Amino acid sequence: MKVVVSAPGVVKFFGEHAVVYGTGAIAASIDRRLYVTARLRNNGEVKIAAYDLSTHGVIVTLKPNGEIVVGTDYGKVIPAIAYVRKAIELTREYLGERAGVELEIKSDMPVGAGLGTSAAVSVATVFAYATITGHELEKREIAKLGHRTELTVQGAASPMDTAVATYGGLLYIKPTSSSPIIEPVRKGAELPTVIGYVKRVATTKELVAWVRKLRDKYTKLIDQIIWAIGELVERARVAIEKGELGTVGELMNINHGLLEALGVSDKRLNDMVYAARMAGAIGAKLSGAGGGGCMLALAPNKLKEVAAAIAIANGTPIITELGVEGVRVEKVEK
Amino acid sequence: MKVVVSAPGVVKFFGEHAVVYGTGAIAASIDRRLYVTARLRNNGEVKIAAYDLSTHGVIVTLKPNGEIVVGTDYGKVIPAIAYVRKAIELTREYLGERAGVELEIKSDMPVGAGLGTSAAVSVATVFAYATITGHELEKREIAKLGHRTELTVQGAASPMDTAVATYGGLLYIKPTSSSPIIEPVRKGAELPTVIGYVKRVATTKELVAWVRKLRDKYTKLIDQIIWAIGELVERARVAIEKGELGTVGELMNINHGLLEALGVSDKRLNDMVYAARMAGAIGAKLSGAGGGGCMLALAPNKLKEVAAAIAIANGTPIITELGVEGVRVEKVEK
Repeated sequence: MKVVVSAPGVVKFFGEHAVVYGTGAIAASIDRRLYVTARLRNNGEVKIAAYDLSTHGVIVTLKPNGEIVVGTDYGKVIPAIAYVRKAIELTREYLGERAGVELEIKSDMPVGAGLGTSAAVSVATVFAYATITGHELEKREIAKLGHRTELTVQGAASPMDTAVATYGGLLYIKPTSSSPIIEPVRKGAELPTVIGYVKRVATTKELVAWVRKLRDKYTKLIDQIIWAIGELVERARVAIEKGELGTVGELMNINHGLLEALGVSDKRLNDMVYAARMAGAIGAKLSGAGGGGCMLALAPNKLKEVAAAIAIANGTPIITELGVEGVRVEKVEK
Repeated sequence: MKVVVSAPGVVKFFGEHAVVYGTGAIAASIDRRLYVTARLRNNGEVKIAAYDLSTHGVIVTLKPNGEIVVGTDYGKVIPAIAYVRKAIELTREYLGERAGVELEIKSDMPVGAGLGTSAAVSVATVFAYATITGHELEKREIAKLGHRTELTVQGAASPMDTAVATYGGLLYIKPTSSSPIIEPVRKGAELPTVIGYVKRVATTKELVAWVRKLRDKYTKLIDQIIWAIGELVERARVAIEKGELGTVGELMNINHGLLEALGVSDKRLNDMVYAARMAGAIGAKLSGAGGGGCMLALAPNKLKEVAAAIAIANGTPIITELGVEGVRVEKVEK
């Protein structure tokens, strides 16, 4: 028996960094997906074959005693594998089920570009494992196990990415003193978007720490910038729901400037942002933690022009729609 | 008898655009100057020869009956001439003095780059006319007549530029319901700076109108950005006075991002800003209204490297010190 499950990638649409300090943020699924093919194994072993998750494919075997056997290039691939391993462990525990499985992971997203590969792999693995072992999980349960996977592997994780990978569409998130508010944001119009990405030179952790340091030094000033982003996110949510693309674009531009003020953009991201705007995008901003990684350009009727402009600015363009379907079964073979 | 008077150019250091909505701002004189040479004429006529104020020099003769005779290229040069003419008119009126003079105007600043040529020419003309006709004016009086000149010619003008051209140094300005607060900001350390400029593609009026339109649409959001700039200016003032250049540089970077959020930067300015930072500037921002024009890079011990980087980014670099002497008599020949 074979099951193929897929989960979409995720981009931060509005409010990144500020959300760390309690403002709202909006994230969106993209129509690039990560696929997990699951087969049952009768020896109780978990075997993981991950393709496209690093330059070289790698075979990792997780023995029933917990031992990991890695075929090639351990150092490069262990981060992605860590999510798969943890997702299986948590799902097994949750289901009270210890069947052996063979998982094959393929992705049509670039890894490390800030497109939420770790969330997609966590969510898809949870769902694939449950499905191949004959369990039905609700989305709520998948999102929770996916989030717990990221949380355990990374030490800290917003539930945002795993929620978007699970439910799809666009989600608004706002931290509260207890669990965060997560609400769907319905599109009032299509959101034809070009993602541009470049190699990251700083980690999310470093960039979050940078903003915290800046805020420690200039508390009142940085808080005002954070509040401005918070206000912007609320406006953006309304504009997306009303399908007011011109407003969504303007707010992307303002959000980009505010992230620039927080010091998390860089020359390569700005080059792509300006190239996209000059090629006809109605709004463009960096997306995610910054320091390289990706940017988004909202570009109705200008997708090809904007993609070309991003390529000329030394970025890799991906034409997509924001807010596609979440985790799903692609195929079941008896 | 001949008198040579000079006044410095002016750059906006912090707070541009936000000052329109009542926050503080800081401007600085630069060590590029505009020179007015004045000679008495015994026929009551005012003759103005302006060099370096446009691509071509131009001779304008202002007849006692108010008629203007222009030698060449009226359209291009009339703006600069308009300040000279109005400055003479207002100074004559103020002094009750109608002597004929011949004025020769030279500048070592590029015109239209946002370096305050109109303020320098207004202030220097007032002072030159008063000096050649044997009157002593206090700085307060020069600044006032200079400001009134800009005000009459432009319809609206901040007293900032003319105050800096008069007093020199760095000035903090904050509008109030009556007349604005203007206070000197004393440098705690030298401010070695590279100015980079590119041709402007939008006027100050257009850019101020753009921000107003954005604020009309997103009032709460844009007000928060404006308040953030206001807070930033207060921090910058303290840092300049304490000579904390690292902080001054960081605040320049944040201010640049906030101006980017207001939508007044452009690709060419950003290219220069990033080039300067990568060449070792400790802070860089656009300066003035935006839409092209100029940017500033604070670059202790890196002036040449930063100037080269700005040139490579297609800007014209000017190495300068911020906060030099204001209007002064350079030479008197009997």
